[in-house]
Parts: sequence; C-alpha cells; structure tokens
Amino acid sequence: MIQPETSRPFRIVDCTLREGEQFALAAFTTEQRIAIATKLDAFGVDVIEMTTPVASPRAEADLRRVVDLGLQAEIAAHIRCSRMDAEVALACGVDALHLVMGTSPQLRLHSHGRDLLGILEVAREVLPHIVGRGASIRFSCEDAFRTPMRDVLRIAQVVEDLGVSRIGIADTVGCATPDEVAQRVSVLRAAVNCDIEFHGHNDGDCAVANAWAAWRAGATHIDVTVLGIGERNGIASLGGLIARAAQSAPHSVQRYRIDQLLSLDQQVARALGIEVPFNACITSPTAFSHKAGMHTKAVLAEPTCYEALNPADFGRTREILVGHTLVGRHAISERARLLGLSLDDASILSATRALKNLTDSGAISSDSVDDFLKERAARSTPSTLNS
Amino acid sequence: MIQPETSRPFRIVDCTLREGEQFALAAFTTEQRIAIATKLDAFGVDVIEMTTPVASPRAEADLRRVVDLGLQAEIAAHIRCSRMDAEVALACGVDALHLVMGTSPQLRLHSHGRDLLGILEVAREVLPHIVGRGASIRFSCEDAFRTPMRDVLRIAQVVEDLGVSRIGIADTVGCATPDEVAQRVSVLRAAVNCDIEFHGHNDGDCAVANAWAAWRAGATHIDVTVLGIGERNGIASLGGLIARAAQSAPHSVQRYRIDQLLSLDQQVARALGIEVPFNACITSPTAFSHKAGMHTKAVLAEPTCYEALNPADFGRTREILVGHTLVGRHAISERARLLGLSLDDASILSATRALKNLTDSGAISSDSVDDFLKERAARSTPSTLNS
Repeated sequence: MIQPETSRPFRIVDCTLREGEQFALAAFTTEQRIAIATKLDAFGVDVIEMTTPVASPRAEADLRRVVDLGLQAEIAAHIRCSRMDAEVALACGVDALHLVMGTSPQLRLHSHGRDLLGILEVAREVLPHIVGRGASIRFSCEDAFRTPMRDVLRIAQVVEDLGVSRIGIADTVGCATPDEVAQRVSVLRAAVNCDIEFHGHNDGDCAVANAWAAWRAGATHIDVTVLGIGERNGIASLGGLIARAAQSAPHSVQRYRIDQLLSLDQQVARALGIEVPFNACITSPTAFSHKAGMHTKAVLAEPTCYEALNPADFGRTREILVGHTLVGRHAISERARLLGLSLDDASILSATRALKNLTDSGAISSDSVDDFLKERAARSTPSTLNS
Repeated sequence: MIQPETSRPFRIVDCTLREGEQFALAAFTTEQRIAIATKLDAFGVDVIEMTTPVASPRAEADLRRVVDLGLQAEIAAHIRCSRMDAEVALACGVDALHLVMGTSPQLRLHSHGRDLLGILEVAREVLPHIVGRGASIRFSCEDAFRTPMRDVLRIAQVVEDLGVSRIGIADTVGCATPDEVAQRVSVLRAAVNCDIEFHGHNDGDCAVANAWAAWRAGATHIDVTVLGIGERNGIASLGGLIARAAQSAPHSVQRYRIDQLLSLDQQVARALGIEVPFNACITSPTAFSHKAGMHTKAVLAEPTCYEALNPADFGRTREILVGHTLVGRHAISERARLLGLSLDDASILSATRALKNLTDSGAISSDSVDDFLKERAARSTPSTLNS
C-alpha cells in the first residue's frame, strides 16, 4: 500500500500571484508583486504563476514587469483556453501559458456551456495556434475530481497529442481525499507521457495531504501559495508542502532555500495585513514552542522527542515555555541554569510548585519567571553570599 | 484501494481543554473552561478531555467543576499511567481516564526511562487498580508512529486484556502520512476488539487527512480541538474533521450541531485573543467568499460549482466579492439587480471595465461599489427619469 519514497523531485508551481490574488483579502500593489516574485525566486520555486493579463490593465503591466525581472523561475500566465488571452500573454513574454478549462458537469453547464466534445473542440481550435511559440503549455482540467475520469483521460490524451507539455488536474472545490487523488493521478500517469500538475483546495483540510499523495502517485508539479491563500479558505501552502516533504523525503527540499520560508511567509502576511496563522507549519510563531512539562523534559534531553523537523534547518529556534501552569521542573531547572542560578533539586521542585500556583490564574512572561527565579535564588543563598 | 464509505459513525474526543491548553497562547480561566465545555456539549462532542488534575490546584478544581455540570458528553482526565494520577482523577468523578505513555524509542529513553517490558510492567501494575472503578479507560501509545508496530500491538493486546475499553494511537510529532495511518490502524483493528482512538499533530499539515484515514481504516474515536490548537502548530481541528466528513459521509455529522461550529470557533478564538484563521474550514471569515469573475459567474448560476459544502448547513452565508480588479460582469449584474438598478448589458460591461480600472490600484468596499453603480445608473437613465 505504501509506495517507496521516490528520488524523483517535485517541481513547485507557486500561485501566490494568481490563486493568492483570488483570496478575499488580497490586493497586491505592483511593488508587492515584484517583491513577492523576487522572494519566491530566491526561495527557488520552479514556476511563478500570475493572474491573466486580460484581468485588468495593471495585471498586464505587472506581468510584463515580472517577466522583465529576468528571474530563474519560469513565469507563467494563468489564462482561459482562448486564443485572445494566449496572444496577450505571449506578447508579455511569458515562459509558460497555463490554460484552464472547467471539465466537470457543473462547470460545463454554468461556466462555459460546452459539453465534452465542445471542450475538445476548443482545445483543438486554440492549441495549434499557441504551441511552438516559445512558451511551454499546461492544460488544466478545472474541477477534475468531479469530472468522470474517462473524460479527464480523453481530454488529457487529446491535449497531449496537440502538444501541451503538462496536464493539470485540479481539486477546485476541495472535495478530494488523498486516496482519491492517488487513484486519479495514478490512472492519469499511466495514460499520458507528459508532466502532471496537481492543484488542490483546502475546503476539507486535506490540501497538503492531497498534494503529497499526488506527488507520490506520479505528479511532477505541485501548486501551492505562500501561506496557502486562495479562493475561500485557500489551497495547499508552500510551508505545508515543505514540512511534509522535509519529513519523508528530505532530498526533495534540498534544492529550495528553506531557511527563507519564514521571511517569505511574513512578507506575504504583511502585504495582506494579517498574521502568519498559528497553525502554519514551520513558520507559525509557536511551531517550535514546547509547553507541557512532559514535553519540555524530553525536548531538553533530546529535541527530536517532540520535533519531527529541526527548527535550525529553517532558521528558527526552539522555545521552552515556562510562564504557565503546565510547567515542569525540568524546564524550570534549565531556565535557572541559563540564568546562572544555583538552585538545588528541592529548590527547583518548590519553585516549580510555586510557579504553577502563581500561573494558575493566568500566564506570565518568561521575564517574570526569570525575576521570580532570581528572587528565589537570592533568598535561598543569603548565607553563601554573605560568607 | 478506496474503501467504501462506512455507515459506522465516528466519535469525537474534543481535547481543547487538554491538548488545547498546551497551545502556547492558551491560558483559560475557570469561567472560560466552563463556557467552552458547555458549548462543546451543546455541539454534541462525545468526550471532553481535560488536563490532568495533578497539573495544578486549579486544574483539579476546574475538572470537578466541569464534572459537576452534568453534561451529556463524557468527561475524561488525561493522565500519566500512574495510580496516583488515576486516584486523583477518579476522586474528581470523571467518566473516563485517558492514560498516556510514551512508546517510541525516543520517549522510552527521554520521557520515562522504561523499555518495552518496563512499559508493560507499569500497565500491569496500574490498570488492575483502576479498572472497574466506574470510569472507562483508554490507554494511548504516545508517539505510536515512531514505535515499532509489533510493540504497539504487544502493548495494545496486553492493556486490552487488562480491561481498557479503548487503545489510543498518537502521531505525537506530526510525522505520519494518511497511508501510514491507514496501514497502522488497519493492523491494530485486526489485533484488538476494543475501540481505537487516533490523535494526530499537524506539523506536516496532514492532521485532518490522517484523522480521516484513521476512521476509514477502523478507528472509532477521533481527537480534535477547536481551531486545531495544541502543542506547536496544533492537531486536527474540529472544523476540519466536520468539513471533511460533511463532504464524503454526511450521515456521520448529522448527530452534531454543525450550525454551532462558527460560534464555538469564535468563542475559543476570543478566549485566546486571536482571530479565526483565514484557512479554517467552514468558519474562516472567507470560507464562503467568491472573488474571481469565473467563479462568481458560475456560483451565481449554481453555488455547488465552487462550493463543496453548503454554507447554510453551518449557519453561514455566501459572499460574492465585487470591490476588486478580478471582478466579472455577472457579479456586477447581480449586484445591480439586488440594488434594484436597471442597467442594460452594455452598461454592465462598461461599469465592470470601469470598476476593474478603479480597483486596479487597490480594493474598495462593497458599499463603494454600490455607490458607483447607483451613480452610473443615474447617469445612464436621465431621459427615462425626466420623461
């Protein structure tokens, strides 16, 4: 059931400047777009997907600006399967065209009004004009997880024959489970030779698990955004993908500057006017905080006891929380040691008990704990000081 | 590979007042604990797990207070595998004892210093004294996903024979994938007759997917917290589990008051001094917001086009965002209709273009969009008004 970890790398398609712009709170300025693209490139993402240039005058101007930065990452425009949209994007000098077309019964009826043959007809009309024009082409089946799999395969095989270099399979409404993703990607992997990209929303809180399942089943490219921002409650986050991969396939993240993840997340959070959420992998302010006595005791002896990831790999430091009622004597002992205080075991135990009582009605700061310990040390050793 | 959806229900073990208290920012007052327990009970969670009463005087007093509320939910104390801890908890009148003991090589060495035989010895010493005392007993293997599976099975079979009613299997460091969870739970399911509980951390962003995999593989009880708060970046969230289940197995959530999820999440967020994060399933402020033109067009025709969950089931309403540069003419047309404005197709198209330009340098409020549309309507129909 469990497939062997593959040495095949994944490629990261960052969609912060496309899907991320569809997040309710996002309204990036030109300067922010350039700063984010530059930072994504420094991190090492493989593809930067941007909003279609036909969305607005500034969308087009900013796409050109980002193309002109001459970044290492491929710059892709996310466009409808339309010759006009493609021409505008090509004129901007993009490296890749990311075509998208709804394939589910729901989107056939309410998005573009075409049935399966109609979808294939549009693909046959548009693709021959844009293939071989200097940009690679991805064709994504929007809402692929509510599309009959035979239709996904039919479309994939037709567009592959027409020259696209990558098929996208999107869980647009966030309804898929990892099992379903693994199954569909496996089937698609058997049916086409080209690359496969997975895009998954987080409505069912499975976006990163689904992305992981997609990669393991044969997907080559994974869509993410910084912090996971996107329509509704978003898609797979870059940090989540990195956290998952760093645990099970550390070789796969070596090509990325994972030490820059924190500043990347913080930069985008600032641009959105939000905080990095507490539940973010790696970059949450508390991602490497340890609180309960049982945890801190073991972490002080051996950090891997309660850390699947090494904070230092991400430029982060572990924090042992002490100003709360769940504090244990090992954490207090370590704090006293760091402060250079000499307190014997009995003193540590009584200080711990006193701190538990003190913080039972509310947490206090680490500085207050330090003051408390210094005072206890001073009280417990007057004779030594005076001798 | 995909198992049929089961009609077997899952039971929710809410750990907000235990694991949640280990979240760095948590420091609940007695009043907050009572309010949260009461609200969890109204929601319908099956078990409310609370911090061990030996943690502090207030922990013990508050456990008694919550027991005395006489809630429908079972009240459990999370304790070490210790006769003393169990006696204190039993004296508080709990319905269940949730024993935990580290089983991985890491925790054997650094948490309690006992090898496998030592763990079994402690279980054999403690359990006979506490079985049959009026509280059901769960024994959880902490860090079970880094424990050799044969050891997990050995422990599980011994403690089942000693009379526990449930075995816990915990992904304590958040290292497991859904495949691994499914595999271990399946094996455990075959080895014991008692209930099985899964507890999973979110360090690899797979907590909810793992919980889902555990249930499908045979787990009976799933640990969650409100918002997913817990050590580091937390565990599976109640909202995430409900969102996942409501999609694939709607019958399984019928016994819960899912319309109260929003106020529950908001209540805990307030107690923590944080916002409900944007990435929360169902209860994120933007969980049912639709922004891009392609999305809003289809959602206005048929909401399920971009909604896997019905917001009304959760007491929420969908929002069509209009004050941004990705706005489409269908969203503007609908907004005009709601305002009772008569604008023909050409006017809608030109208003949409004008709005895209206007918001290209920054989003505006919906009220501003309304004013903009009213003004255009007034300008476009002077002759009608004068005639």
